[in-house]
Amino acid sequence: VYTFREKLRLAQNSNASWVCVGLDPVLDRLPASLGKSDKPLLEFCNTIVDNTHDVVSAYKPNLAFWLAQGSSGVDQLQRLIEHIPDDIPVILDGKFGDVGHTAELYALAAYGQLGADAVTANPYLGVDAISPFVAVAQHGVFLLARTSNPSAPDMQNLALGDMQIYKYAAKLAAGWDLEYSGTCGVVVGATYPGELAQIRSIAPDLPFLIPGIGAQGGDLRAAVEHGSTADGIGPIINSSRGIIYASSGSDFAAAAREAALTLRDRINECREEAG
Amino acid sequence: VYTFREKLRLAQNSNASWVCVGLDPVLDRLPASLGKSDKPLLEFCNTIVDNTHDVVSAYKPNLAFWLAQGSSGVDQLQRLIEHIPDDIPVILDGKFGDVGHTAELYALAAYGQLGADAVTANPYLGVDAISPFVAVAQHGVFLLARTSNPSAPDMQNLALGDMQIYKYAAKLAAGWDLEYSGTCGVVVGATYPGELAQIRSIAPDLPFLIPGIGAQGGDLRAAVEHGSTADGIGPIINSSRGIIYASSGSDFAAAAREAALTLRDRINECREEAG
Repeated sequence: VYTFREKLRLAQNSNASWVCVGLDPVLDRLPASLGKSDKPLLEFCNTIVDNTHDVVSAYKPNLAFWLAQGSSGVDQLQRLIEHIPDDIPVILDGKFGDVGHTAELYALAAYGQLGADAVTANPYLGVDAISPFVAVAQHGVFLLARTSNPSAPDMQNLALGDMQIYKYAAKLAAGWDLEYSGTCGVVVGATYPGELAQIRSIAPDLPFLIPGIGAQGGDLRAAVEHGSTADGIGPIINSSRGIIYASSGSDFAAAAREAALTLRDRINECREEAG
Repeated sequence: VYTFREKLRLAQNSNASWVCVGLDPVLDRLPASLGKSDKPLLEFCNTIVDNTHDVVSAYKPNLAFWLAQGSSGVDQLQRLIEHIPDDIPVILDGKFGDVGHTAELYALAAYGQLGADAVTANPYLGVDAISPFVAVAQHGVFLLARTSNPSAPDMQNLALGDMQIYKYAAKLAAGWDLEYSGTCGVVVGATYPGELAQIRSIAPDLPFLIPGIGAQGGDLRAAVEHGSTADGIGPIINSSRGIIYASSGSDFAAAAREAALTLRDRINECREEAG
């Protein structure tokens, strides 16, 4: 059994890719060509996976998109994760944040029921809310530092003395990573490229999960330049809508593959330029 | 159609109760007398509801406990909420916190699929992450200010100038409540009784959701003294394990009713003492 870090590194190396696909399907945006299915989200995403798994290094389903279809959606999510090849890490994006007793139940849901490798979590409740997700090193947790949404500064940019809260969150994550043996990472929105460098200096060893590429329009160059850990684990650069909805026609699977490849190649060009 | 505030006030008045029951069942703590059921969480909680609905003013299922049983758990949660009498508000405790586009999907899950009246949410992502939950006044959102877990101070007690983060969260919630027409409340752990008074002074109009009574051992007197809004909406005083596991025997339903009644009466005595 690999640790989460090792599994991620192996997938990045074998597919020469830092691309993560956000598996966030919305029922009324699915291609008409899918036809009638009683598991439409699953059918759509399985096809995306079948056409991208050799050019990406992670998948990130967001729980909300599946829970929005009730119990059927959760059933489809469980089947989707089962369908994803074992060598590609799956990060369940649940932004979990609850008291310890309850976080244990979320860990059971994410790992035991759904079969994810890692999760995203919110730092607001402190370490109690995190530790159940990293009780064993084959799992990992990505703590929200700077999110990619317009109102992120409402709280995240407030100043704690000379340090803004989002930087302090990265500092907390770095401390928890020491305490929990290299199982932590941070979420840093690429919509705020200057902040990637700052967070990298605070948390040199933590893998970055970077949303906001694509539909949200982040800065790829900064993501590549500051994205890697000191020991060479690349950033997890997520694109969701830019890949899964690359075409709304019957060619959606080929178009998704093409979009994933294009993003992989753009990232790899940036890597060569950066040396 | 009542607003959430009105629905809560009516339930508090008609049952003379500020008690909220946390419907957080764990499979291996259910009474043996339940026997074999393919929907054990539902069967257990339906029985709790049948025996308490006239002495409480809210129910608060925590999503984690249901999601820990996968799609079946989510199906049971949906059926449970359907079973709860219409005049008792249901707060889905999901501590949601995601970007606007995704928060919309969580609102669809919580209200459209599961049928809850209100949710709990995390303030870390700012107002984008909140607004989809309060798009209409029949719904409400309780923002985490001070949580009841031991590591809450890791982030919540940090000082922003002369104001700690948990107070700032209450201030944000008060602002959002003005923007979204009286649909916001705050979560304030009763394990930190002094803080109830501080948060009440920052947010005089916001209903309080107070966990930490019972198994977590909070201070009931402070919850009563500072719990009500300026216009007389009482606090939502939650007990989960202290009520649902009041007995592990075949008398669990009667014991749960007795525990809910005892808590209601203790609260009402505190109210009389406080005048």
